[in-house]
Amino acid sequence: MNFKQQLDEKTRHAEDVLKRYLPEEKGFQKKVLEAMNYSVMAGGKRLRPILMKESFLLFGGEGAVVEPFMAALEMIHNYSLVHDDLPAMDNDKYRRGRKTTWNVYGDGMAVLAGDGLLNLAFESAASAFDFADDTKTIKRVALALKVLGKKAGIYGMIGGQAADIEAESDGRVSKELLFFIHENKTAALIQAAMMIGAILAGAETEAVKAVEKAAYNIGIAFQVQDDILDVTGSEDVLGKPIGSDEKNHKLTYVSLYGLEEAKKEVSRLSEEALDILRSFENQNEISGNKLYRNPFLEQLVTELITREK
Amino acid sequence: MNFKQQLDEKTRHAEDVLKRYLPEEKGFQKKVLEAMNYSVMAGGKRLRPILMKESFLLFGGEGAVVEPFMAALEMIHNYSLVHDDLPAMDNDKYRRGRKTTWNVYGDGMAVLAGDGLLNLAFESAASAFDFADDTKTIKRVALALKVLGKKAGIYGMIGGQAADIEAESDGRVSKELLFFIHENKTAALIQAAMMIGAILAGAETEAVKAVEKAAYNIGIAFQVQDDILDVTGSEDVLGKPIGSDEKNHKLTYVSLYGLEEAKKEVSRLSEEALDILRSFENQNEISGNKLYRNPFLEQLVTELITREK
Repeated sequence: MNFKQQLDEKTRHAEDVLKRYLPEEKGFQKKVLEAMNYSVMAGGKRLRPILMKESFLLFGGEGAVVEPFMAALEMIHNYSLVHDDLPAMDNDKYRRGRKTTWNVYGDGMAVLAGDGLLNLAFESAASAFDFADDTKTIKRVALALKVLGKKAGIYGMIGGQAADIEAESDGRVSKELLFFIHENKTAALIQAAMMIGAILAGAETEAVKAVEKAAYNIGIAFQVQDDILDVTGSEDVLGKPIGSDEKNHKLTYVSLYGLEEAKKEVSRLSEEALDILRSFENQNEISGNKLYRNPFLEQLVTELITREK
Repeated sequence: MNFKQQLDEKTRHAEDVLKRYLPEEKGFQKKVLEAMNYSVMAGGKRLRPILMKESFLLFGGEGAVVEPFMAALEMIHNYSLVHDDLPAMDNDKYRRGRKTTWNVYGDGMAVLAGDGLLNLAFESAASAFDFADDTKTIKRVALALKVLGKKAGIYGMIGGQAADIEAESDGRVSKELLFFIHENKTAALIQAAMMIGAILAGAETEAVKAVEKAAYNIGIAFQVQDDILDVTGSEDVLGKPIGSDEKNHKLTYVSLYGLEEAKKEVSRLSEEALDILRSFENQNEISGNKLYRNPFLEQLVTELITREK
């Protein structure tokens, strides 16, 4: 199988896992369950659960304990989109070519659907204890839950969103604030994905820290590339208008560094991330401490960062 | 100390615990942290954390493992009020005599503040693992997390809210739907409070089930009493207009059963709940299986249900 075929297969697997944790549409609260499923099944690359699983595999993880967390993280990503699209926030009527959740179900129901997904995410993640029999695994699940909470919350994604909203309202964006916003809004869930994969597979503290750094680089590089494409991209390829950042006087990595330096920054960040991902000695007892690699994960990271759309 | 003094002391304790888990207002995301603290510190009876602690004590619970859950449940109760008050939902500008969160911070920030509280609730609850050294306690914390997720989510509080919104939009409310709404919207968090207290103290499965039933009765009796007071209450005592349910043609327990039967129902439900609470043989190893009581909890339940406001 080539990379594309592997990616397709892994995307399907992530969706299968996700569907198992989504609710059946029945009962007196049927409408909110429909709204939840509608928003999660609207498509998307399933990048975060795939990264989680691959990080799990990198450290020799085995079994289904990672699956509830895969579903949980994708639910968190999607609830944040549902709430972001609300009239009270970005007021977006369409996403990925489909009506947004509030535009179909009304904004009251969309608020509840987002709440329902966030709650179900933690509920699903907590069900990972069902796959944990021994104290070692139970402790890993507990740590993974804490990482999920931190990276999704006010010291993670929500913190980044809040800082972003406020920056827009007062119009002043410093370099420090730009990095804060993207470290939290974009990179934090990538970090959650890869750290949780590593933790559940039994990676040691130092390795988890290194993964956190690699994921930070991937998240920021992804965002810098986004800013570059807004300047250099083709509208046909991107499927959305270019130049919108400049028009909106938005501080971006490109306006901060200039185009050439921004491109160099993408290379630097991604090389460093790949070096980290290539550097682990496997700590899984079975494999006897040999250097462990996940070529698919390395290629996925490369594709993400050098993408043209 | 009389009951009132005890209740004041326990309310203060619940608030002290809660404050330890609320964020410091600093950093680029300061505004959302302010909005979260504003909404949680707006007052309120702290009923749920108090019920949790008392249920914990009923089963001989010791130590601080219950505290993160006390904070978590109160955060969940408060996030639900923040989102309920939004223009997209009930559009309430005031609550407990103060401006609602969106009315101070804007509705985008109020959406995020609610999200932040819900997320922080699970993050706080997961930190209970820090108080759990042995496998037995770790398993109790894991089970408590699952109960919290279920009772707060789409098969609990959110499910009740969603059914309520939908009932309002299509105007048909059956008896079954009325019970569904209040079982989930009102009783579910009372159940979470008392079940989690029992679980963390080490109560056995049968006892936790009995507590779930008692808490169901308390939640429903509380709501029936609410409906009764809307008919018989004094506006001066209640501090809000009476007769609003009838004016809004709302199906209530009073319109369903009639006033006298509704009053009997409150007595029946609360007597049954009190009987359950008086029935436990303590399963805490130290006390040697004697019949265990918590007179404060019994009186609190009585006060809640027979209240005049």
